[in-house]
Amino acid sequence: MNSDRKPSILVCNDDGIQGEGLHVLAASMKKIGAVTVVAPSEPRSGMGHAMTLGIPLRIGEYRKNSRFFGFTVSGTPVDCIKVALSHILPEKPDLIVSGINYGSNTATNTLYSGTVAAALEGVIQHIPSLAFSLTTYENADFTYAGKFARKLARKVLKEGLPSDTILSVNIPNVPESEIQGVAVTAQGRSRWAEDTIERDDMYGNPYYWLSGKLRLLDDETLYDEYAVRRNYVSVTPVAIDMTNHDELKRIGKWNLKK
Amino acid sequence: MNSDRKPSILVCNDDGIQGEGLHVLAASMKKIGAVTVVAPSEPRSGMGHAMTLGIPLRIGEYRKNSRFFGFTVSGTPVDCIKVALSHILPEKPDLIVSGINYGSNTATNTLYSGTVAAALEGVIQHIPSLAFSLTTYENADFTYAGKFARKLARKVLKEGLPSDTILSVNIPNVPESEIQGVAVTAQGRSRWAEDTIERDDMYGNPYYWLSGKLRLLDDETLYDEYAVRRNYVSVTPVAIDMTNHDELKRIGKWNLKK
Repeated sequence: MNSDRKPSILVCNDDGIQGEGLHVLAASMKKIGAVTVVAPSEPRSGMGHAMTLGIPLRIGEYRKNSRFFGFTVSGTPVDCIKVALSHILPEKPDLIVSGINYGSNTATNTLYSGTVAAALEGVIQHIPSLAFSLTTYENADFTYAGKFARKLARKVLKEGLPSDTILSVNIPNVPESEIQGVAVTAQGRSRWAEDTIERDDMYGNPYYWLSGKLRLLDDETLYDEYAVRRNYVSVTPVAIDMTNHDELKRIGKWNLKK
Repeated sequence: MNSDRKPSILVCNDDGIQGEGLHVLAASMKKIGAVTVVAPSEPRSGMGHAMTLGIPLRIGEYRKNSRFFGFTVSGTPVDCIKVALSHILPEKPDLIVSGINYGSNTATNTLYSGTVAAALEGVIQHIPSLAFSLTTYENADFTYAGKFARKLARKVLKEGLPSDTILSVNIPNVPESEIQGVAVTAQGRSRWAEDTIERDDMYGNPYYWLSGKLRLLDDETLYDEYAVRRNYVSVTPVAIDMTNHDELKRIGKWNLKK
């Protein structure tokens, strides 16, 4: 990045182009960089690292009064990053920020999250990337989250990140005065307690809705979900390398034959 | 698992209920266990860890002559595991096997793969899980892959796996005599060289297809893609914990304030 120009920042999310958190994040980033917004045309939560293979994608435009302009892609968050880098941006951005998501992306949510996946796709394409989530679905106040996102973005533009790692940030939905601090955390081990709902349609045939609640399993401060429940901002370095390196040795000893 | 009964094995994939690799895997597992097949009603490749939130899911049945019976779920591979565990199987299976996928799931493909995601969802739900992929899209011969899958399943039923780790297995598409051995590998650093294709529709409006090729970046034998290109079966322990633990320390030193 040249120091004589503003950093270029690509902003994406998984809640779609109309997401309030996206608009707050874009406005916040405009204070430190040249911002391009590329987001899904519709909400695409829970898409994980899905990409669109069987159908082609369309690029559109979305404008909301004079303050917000963004490109839309008719696909997943990962599609947005791929299309933004190949067909919308003239060159690679200095930073990708994804969010601000409605709902926390702690623990195993890391795998389900389209917000996190968009940032991971950024790092796959060798661009420092950050994901931001607010820990609520209701009565969201993105004010402090937008401010913290800018602070962290500045830091990352200066310090850099490893070529295989994003920062996934979860921000408690409380006023700034109630934020206890910033905790650098590991992805927690909390998992969803499944609670799939079965219903019958008007013909008497069953259908199923996915549902559930995150059950806290982490009893140590070094995990993300534990931190946010105590009103800390949680910053987790998440890598695209999913290898269990300890397990390499144990499986190696199995001495598997073809 | 009681030793006086056959292990129960759940078989899933991402190529859909009609996938040849699924049928081979189910037939192979029947030799060592009581098999239930639950697979997407349609091919759902590249879905990563996506789950279906906005629409309900349906369960169906699929029969192919007297040899193959499976349940279908109108969603993603991850949906299949969730619905299988909550509404199809009477109790938790002893093992989940996913595949056999058309096309390798090495390197960053680990993140895009629905086959791998189904196995990861299994381990999220505390069930030992394996993912199998054959390294080709054309002229697939699943014979040896099915045989190796059974061998590894037997081993895992005996030895167990950590509660956060699957084995992702990639098998070269060559006759058994050409297989060089079995390598326990780390997820490679190879990434896709993006090659998004732009075309115009009949009205002159552009649309975009995702495309690309995996560019080999790994020059060491301990990586998955390198191993399969040399006709080794690659066995990679993949964890649901994506934390970059080394980076925890470095980011910790940033001493971030709220």
